[in-house]
Amino acid sequence: MHTPIPLEKSWRLLNHGPTVLVSAAHQGRRNVMAASWNMPLDFTPPKVAVVIDKNTVTCELIKASGYFALNVPSRALAAATVQVGNRSARDLPAGQDKFAWAGLQTFAGSLIGAPLIGGCLGWLECRVLPEPELAHKYDLYLAEIIAAHADPRAFQDGHWNFAEGMPRSIHYIAGGHFFESGEQFSEALPE
Amino acid sequence: MHTPIPLEKSWRLLNHGPTVLVSAAHQGRRNVMAASWNMPLDFTPPKVAVVIDKNTVTCELIKASGYFALNVPSRALAAATVQVGNRSARDLPAGQDKFAWAGLQTFAGSLIGAPLIGGCLGWLECRVLPEPELAHKYDLYLAEIIAAHADPRAFQDGHWNFAEGMPRSIHYIAGGHFFESGEQFSEALPE
Repeated sequence: MHTPIPLEKSWRLLNHGPTVLVSAAHQGRRNVMAASWNMPLDFTPPKVAVVIDKNTVTCELIKASGYFALNVPSRALAAATVQVGNRSARDLPAGQDKFAWAGLQTFAGSLIGAPLIGGCLGWLECRVLPEPELAHKYDLYLAEIIAAHADPRAFQDGHWNFAEGMPRSIHYIAGGHFFESGEQFSEALPE
Repeated sequence: MHTPIPLEKSWRLLNHGPTVLVSAAHQGRRNVMAASWNMPLDFTPPKVAVVIDKNTVTCELIKASGYFALNVPSRALAAATVQVGNRSARDLPAGQDKFAWAGLQTFAGSLIGAPLIGGCLGWLECRVLPEPELAHKYDLYLAEIIAAHADPRAFQDGHWNFAEGMPRSIHYIAGGHFFESGEQFSEALPE
């Protein structure tokens, strides 16, 4: 389930630090990896920063296409997130699609060629900003969010608000361990 | 309560996406702000990336000194985190220390002049990497972690493992709303 969300609220999908799935495609090839090392970078226009190892197939497709999608998985996709985060497409049988291997469904984005991953809580379609030195020195990619979508049962009117019993976003620790996004609480802003 | 942790595990304090407090000092001045937009950047040597608005006093002190600390607050410090994240030191009465204003205690770091904040779950002492163009264009600071500490009731032997009843790390959403780090769970790594 996914509906468009306004770009000016799109950075809120990443503000609380969830682990994401990065998907990319170029000339008929496509791939997916996991990335804990991501953050919003700006509000207007909305931008993100993400670390993408230069040895990955996903990185190759991002460099070739100039686009990627960040998909915010729910706990229901945590096992698949660990799988795609710890196995390269290069180590799968020849011709095996990594999405299919991990049991991930996909659907088309609105503006970019990278596939979006079904069952996620939110999706950001991103255009890479040309900063080749950052990519070379730090594996660091900066990008503008050009379209955004969310599952309205999890994020609506610009706010996370998980429906009762719904799997939540996930935060990778290391070694297959995660925190689920926990209790929501509020503190008063200064007067 | 704080004990040193090995640098090679230090990035794990940020891997799950907590909101941090950024502290800095220079020539007798000191300040603190909140930053949700942070992430690990590398393992060896460990590095971090963090967005720091150029209009903040904290940014001024970081530029002048070349160092900052990232403090990982627990939920017990969530109210203070919102306070320091939404009020500039410039708007406090002249001479008012922002830490004291927000009720934050501090103690000395081991290698840097920036104060560390008492009651946090973890602390990273960081040296800024010289990337002035990134700071200018994106308010983006990259830094090497040169010392790290954690509360052993929350992080020990390189792993988060919150003692029963202990306040957990926090993940800022917007508008004073947070998620607490929730249930810990595990998924199998690929064979």
